[in-house]
Amino acid sequence: MNLAKQKLVKIIDNALEEDIGRKDITTRAIIGDKTTGKAEIIAKETGIIAGVELADMIFQRLNQAIEFKTKVSDGIEVKQGDMIAEVVGPAAAILEGERVVLNFMQRLSGIATKVKQYQQLIKEYPAEIYDTRKTTPNLRSLEKYAVRVGGGKNHRFGLDDAILIKDNHIQLAGGIKAAINLVKESVSCYKKVEVEVESLEQVKEALAAEADIIMLDNMSYDMLEQAVELISEQAIIEASGKITKENLVEVAKRGVDVISLGCLTHSVKALDISLNFK
Amino acid sequence: MNLAKQKLVKIIDNALEEDIGRKDITTRAIIGDKTTGKAEIIAKETGIIAGVELADMIFQRLNQAIEFKTKVSDGIEVKQGDMIAEVVGPAAAILEGERVVLNFMQRLSGIATKVKQYQQLIKEYPAEIYDTRKTTPNLRSLEKYAVRVGGGKNHRFGLDDAILIKDNHIQLAGGIKAAINLVKESVSCYKKVEVEVESLEQVKEALAAEADIIMLDNMSYDMLEQAVELISEQAIIEASGKITKENLVEVAKRGVDVISLGCLTHSVKALDISLNFK
Amino acid sequence: MNLAKQKLVKIIDNALEEDIGRKDITTRAIIGDKTTGKAEIIAKETGIIAGVELADMIFQRLNQAIEFKTKVSDGIEVKQGDMIAEVVGPAAAILEGERVVLNFMQRLSGIATKVKQYQQLIKEYPAEIYDTRKTTPNLRSLEKYAVRVGGGKNHRFGLDDAILIKDNHIQLAGGIKAAINLVKESVSCYKKVEVEVESLEQVKEALAAEADIIMLDNMSYDMLEQAVELISEQAIIEASGKITKENLVEVAKRGVDVISLGCLTHSVKALDISLNFK
Amino acid sequence: MNLAKQKLVKIIDNALEEDIGRKDITTRAIIGDKTTGKAEIIAKETGIIAGVELADMIFQRLNQAIEFKTKVSDGIEVKQGDMIAEVVGPAAAILEGERVVLNFMQRLSGIATKVKQYQQLIKEYPAEIYDTRKTTPNLRSLEKYAVRVGGGKNHRFGLDDAILIKDNHIQLAGGIKAAINLVKESVSCYKKVEVEVESLEQVKEALAAEADIIMLDNMSYDMLEQAVELISEQAIIEASGKITKENLVEVAKRGVDVISLGCLTHSVKALDISLNFK
Amino acid sequence: MNLAKQKLVKIIDNALEEDIGRKDITTRAIIGDKTTGKAEIIAKETGIIAGVELADMIFQRLNQAIEFKTKVSDGIEVKQGDMIAEVVGPAAAILEGERVVLNFMQRLSGIATKVKQYQQLIKEYPAEIYDTRKTTPNLRSLEKYAVRVGGGKNHRFGLDDAILIKDNHIQLAGGIKAAINLVKESVSCYKKVEVEVESLEQVKEALAAEADIIMLDNMSYDMLEQAVELISEQAIIEASGKITKENLVEVAKRGVDVISLGCLTHSVKALDISLNFK
Amino acid sequence: MNLAKQKLVKIIDNALEEDIGRKDITTRAIIGDKTTGKAEIIAKETGIIAGVELADMIFQRLNQAIEFKTKVSDGIEVKQGDMIAEVVGPAAAILEGERVVLNFMQRLSGIATKVKQYQQLIKEYPAEIYDTRKTTPNLRSLEKYAVRVGGGKNHRFGLDDAILIKDNHIQLAGGIKAAINLVKESVSCYKKVEVEVESLEQVKEALAAEADIIMLDNMSYDMLEQAVELISEQAIIEASGKITKENLVEVAKRGVDVISLGCLTHSVKALDISLNFK
Repeated sequence: MNLAKQKLVKIIDNALEEDIGRKDITTRAIIGDKTTGKAEIIAKETGIIAGVELADMIFQRLNQAIEFKTKVSDGIEVKQGDMIAEVVGPAAAILEGERVVLNFMQRLSGIATKVKQYQQLIKEYPAEIYDTRKTTPNLRSLEKYAVRVGGGKNHRFGLDDAILIKDNHIQLAGGIKAAINLVKESVSCYKKVEVEVESLEQVKEALAAEADIIMLDNMSYDMLEQAVELISEQAIIEASGKITKENLVEVAKRGVDVISLGCLTHSVKALDISLNFK
Repeated sequence: MNLAKQKLVKIIDNALEEDIGRKDITTRAIIGDKTTGKAEIIAKETGIIAGVELADMIFQRLNQAIEFKTKVSDGIEVKQGDMIAEVVGPAAAILEGERVVLNFMQRLSGIATKVKQYQQLIKEYPAEIYDTRKTTPNLRSLEKYAVRVGGGKNHRFGLDDAILIKDNHIQLAGGIKAAINLVKESVSCYKKVEVEVESLEQVKEALAAEADIIMLDNMSYDMLEQAVELISEQAIIEASGKITKENLVEVAKRGVDVISLGCLTHSVKALDISLNFK
Repeated sequence: MNLAKQKLVKIIDNALEEDIGRKDITTRAIIGDKTTGKAEIIAKETGIIAGVELADMIFQRLNQAIEFKTKVSDGIEVKQGDMIAEVVGPAAAILEGERVVLNFMQRLSGIATKVKQYQQLIKEYPAEIYDTRKTTPNLRSLEKYAVRVGGGKNHRFGLDDAILIKDNHIQLAGGIKAAINLVKESVSCYKKVEVEVESLEQVKEALAAEADIIMLDNMSYDMLEQAVELISEQAIIEASGKITKENLVEVAKRGVDVISLGCLTHSVKALDISLNFK
Repeated sequence: MNLAKQKLVKIIDNALEEDIGRKDITTRAIIGDKTTGKAEIIAKETGIIAGVELADMIFQRLNQAIEFKTKVSDGIEVKQGDMIAEVVGPAAAILEGERVVLNFMQRLSGIATKVKQYQQLIKEYPAEIYDTRKTTPNLRSLEKYAVRVGGGKNHRFGLDDAILIKDNHIQLAGGIKAAINLVKESVSCYKKVEVEVESLEQVKEALAAEADIIMLDNMSYDMLEQAVELISEQAIIEASGKITKENLVEVAKRGVDVISLGCLTHSVKALDISLNFK
Repeated sequence: MNLAKQKLVKIIDNALEEDIGRKDITTRAIIGDKTTGKAEIIAKETGIIAGVELADMIFQRLNQAIEFKTKVSDGIEVKQGDMIAEVVGPAAAILEGERVVLNFMQRLSGIATKVKQYQQLIKEYPAEIYDTRKTTPNLRSLEKYAVRVGGGKNHRFGLDDAILIKDNHIQLAGGIKAAINLVKESVSCYKKVEVEVESLEQVKEALAAEADIIMLDNMSYDMLEQAVELISEQAIIEASGKITKENLVEVAKRGVDVISLGCLTHSVKALDISLNFK
Repeated sequence: MNLAKQKLVKIIDNALEEDIGRKDITTRAIIGDKTTGKAEIIAKETGIIAGVELADMIFQRLNQAIEFKTKVSDGIEVKQGDMIAEVVGPAAAILEGERVVLNFMQRLSGIATKVKQYQQLIKEYPAEIYDTRKTTPNLRSLEKYAVRVGGGKNHRFGLDDAILIKDNHIQLAGGIKAAINLVKESVSCYKKVEVEVESLEQVKEALAAEADIIMLDNMSYDMLEQAVELISEQAIIEASGKITKENLVEVAKRGVDVISLGCLTHSVKALDISLNFK
């Protein structure tokens, strides 16, 4: 998945410790170290799978004797009953890892499924689906990965990763021009400058100050249209704020380059997946 | 909140590091260390608030000069426009903490709101709402706290915390009686023994083996009714599996003691909350 | 040993770092990386061995080229001169691990040996030997494991693991009944309720409030007898407080279910074990 | 206590987490955040106290509102009933810290008490009592501190801290002279060289190779006497191996400079101390 | 300094632990906890100071009773004998922190001093001095801060922070155009694209593929001049590779926007600073 | 290299995380997981290599599929163009590790090269080259290793490792005699006592108080000569303070045993080394 490995291992280990705690008292009372078993991870509804490679890593951290046979890769659409992977090895360890594996996979697959749906809705428009920083604390890299699996793209990973001048910044700097100048002085020339605007007046100020990207926040369809026309090729155009499944197509129609949605990660329905021993 | 403090601090620090990374390059370019400001945390829709005390802790970890004035405590229902807290202090630090604070509060309040709704639906029945282990990895304690805020109760926190014999255990042990005996031998007498059953036959076996709690998994209303009658006062009765807002009341009507629902934590709509500078 | 692996690895690594520090300056000056050797771990007195699997893990963490050949498993009684394991591999690494391995094994075996002695003393009575939370800080899981190796059982692992209402709680709640009610309201129905009592009056209160377990603290043999009679089958009966090798049998005779002893872990004579190169 | 602060804080935090786990479910159900109380830490038998300052730190880590009033400092002899400290503040937090505080203090005071007894036995001889590396894993610094509190001195803290050439080193190097030369070549001239010997022949070799310290391992009184005479002022003389309360004085009489005993830390009887609410 | 606080604290704590280890055995033997003192941090040669705020933090981590009175802020030029700060408080703690404080300040001030010298050399040209990723492992943020203190600017902080297509990437992608296209497809539109070129041919390819920044690697003055002319306003121009104090002005003369130098951080002469007790 | 393994792994992991951050966005966009490559690590100038084994470890931490073929071991002198190692495996991982590997190797080789030069200058004198505690924070063990690779020896690793009474200690103790006595009382007899002196008067005091090592700080050649004569065989003689390449030989001529130099580690020119794909 190419996520930074050390951090991923720490996330996995913490999650296993959170769930197993001192010991799985039920499993260890019933199942000996030597007992092996075979289990299947099965989709219980239609959706896009994300987290298969991660599931493998989780079982590996728990017990290297577990063999994980991937049947479906991340990004593939499954239907109810499809086998996602087969898990063979020490039965106790498989049971101890089950819940953690499913908790991760169900959430990531839920995100990927939602992104794919949204992307399909606007596939005839140039706009691309982007995520936001409205992610689950400490799972941002994984959730942004799931967004990519679903066909979306990633907005900045953190406050250090890209410049985004928001209304509070503008207010405290005393205007868009002042804010952009302050940023250009202190940050290196290696960063693009994005500014959030709420009116056509502000769009013009942002263009005058040579912003690289202009985020149109929560605008009416009408204003959106005018803003897109004003900006044209002079900057990348992002639409954001209160965009949902319902108004997504209308926004896309206005010709923006990017549509960013918080709901892709902050309000997710888990995809139903289960692990069954055979 | 009485959650284990060391772990909570680590979760907060990780979340801040995840979002701020090396530095908030926009804010630090525009706002000096000396600039102070006043911001309000505002509810944008109706719901039960959870995470106010946590929000205070997050701002404290970031900068101890931030003053956090709580207006609404966890568990209170807010309406659109209600002020939840006022945040006064170094403007840059408040902006750096904003997203992390909201990401936590919106999710926890979303959970509390959902639990409260479900609980209201069955308030005339004896059944209590319980959560499961289907929580977001590494946020379980906080999510289970939000369940309590919403008026629910917590099922076990991890595999070490209580005994729950599931179908795989029964199968590997060779029956309910054998499984319960193995557990009673190896685990201390300080733990109750819960067993998951799928048929009336299994209910009888569980009773014969003196289970303390019997979980009725995914049963029809009819079978549920018979099971409740069979068990009566001999064990605590839990209903689980595929219970949703739609069938919740029907299940509660059957007289179970406990209804446990994964969806309380695995599929949550974030409550809309924002932070605005004044 | 089925202890939570991540924590165990951290304990081992810390212990190795504590002992080796920056470098074993003596060994590394004298013995090259390529020199291999064969050493034996030998019992120097009679006792129950605990920690063999752990010893293997310690050497593995230090150097995966070390081969550890177990001759005696945990729980076995050894006599002076018995070989517990043979250790073959890089001589320098074996020497660097020696002290840490022995420090762990000697303490754990000391505990197991003591538990076994106590258990033998009361083997004709129904009472079982339990440990307490009076363990060495940060080694609780290992010490409780050693108690199990010696034939004892484990009382709660921590304050989160089981309910135990002690005198201070009773006093602050305003009586046993009030305390039990408070606990039943806030904690889930998945936990048994244990209460500590010091008089027959309190025994009756505890029974009236339907405690699941009653701990008889520091009672005279006479009062113990009466308490056991009063409680009979209504609750599990635990005796605790100032129980030693000397009065253990007398307590067991009174018919309690559980005898818990702090001295099993807080005052231990290390079993004499050594590692000798051949 | 001047122990490296960061490590001490980590030890304390781990110990608190080990005992409290997810939450003290009994205390938090019964006692509110606002309830305050006053408790006393009382000696239940005669001994030397060690760990008072540590106890204060533990309560501080738990809750900074706890006031800890020291009545007796480390190194003072207490009798049954003496108050060691008064603890005032949030009752729930005091209860949550009680066991961890006592587990530390009882063990450290047990060590200090034992060291003082041994030291008193040989006070008319020049020999000083030293500890060894036979300490509880991950508590070495604290245990070595307790040895100093009891009037003993500390042998090396780890394998990096001082040179000690033992029999295995001698064997692998091909003799005492060769071993000492290898060490002198590779280690800096800032370290003294100690060598363990088992015969008078080896004593002579060690002297010839200009060892700074000679450890007489497990020698008969007779051989000890001859060795002391041979070495005289040419090196520091340490006696070690199987020294107990019984033979301690006989060893001291032979005129050695240092007597080192593993039992000071590996086999300790906890001093009885309790915390009582008033 | 606005560096991410958690990481900075960890760096400081590790550095203190590295230097103090188990205990400062000399200082603690001689100086009691109560002894206070006053010390001065003095410049021993001319240079730009960096690390004063950090020094304050280090002493705070060690002992909050230390008062640190800043006399000179980061970025100020000092001469031999100038007082940088006064340090008042527990003498033992000041001595324990001395070396760590000086090791940080001397290195950071050495970097700031070098950057300032280089910057002065080219102050009449438009080019700005930038650093590289050739920093001391685990001290990058601090060293990049020192570069800013000296008047330089920061190139990317890590491989995640900005796109830089180097020769190996070009080769593996099969050309500059292919490489830029791959990057634009997978990375978000929020990032500028920089490409490293070694010939005028490659400059043209980079321009054709619409690179945002072109790094001219190790070019002759002549080629540099032609490249600058070719690119003109179409992209930001960076010169890099083997640039030293000697050829710096010649490169700047050619009209590039950015000059990046590894030697600013990989080969630094520490500024001479000392701490003296009064 | 025999450095404490756990700490080394943590240093490597932190360095990789520092450089790679969330993901190498350039490399991962261009190079797939399956693409393999072969690269060479090449010396670009003459010097002593240090860090080859470390480089191997770094690549291993990143990806165990990388094969590292050492061509030159630590301590060997290389010339421009010499191949130090060949690295074969996943191309993306090699590129991600490149900068971290080079940052370490260049610095360590720079140190080894400098130490060797200095050592060669005084090879006809008995004096040995020693380092100091003036090392890069958190890299001390590695830098001291590089000193050994270059033929130097290591002074103490930290404040816990050896006794060194400096001017501030003497002043606070009230004289050399008092300071040495305090140290001998509190520290064990296993440590040598070193004292720093600045005059012949102090040399005499140190001798009278039986110091094991006397450090002659910043003395004129003349005073140095007299001090050496005074001390003769009574103590080890160390010269320190402002010793550089220029005056090194003159100091060595005076017959001291040890010359310690801060510049070996605080002011280092990185050795030029590069990694090239083939």
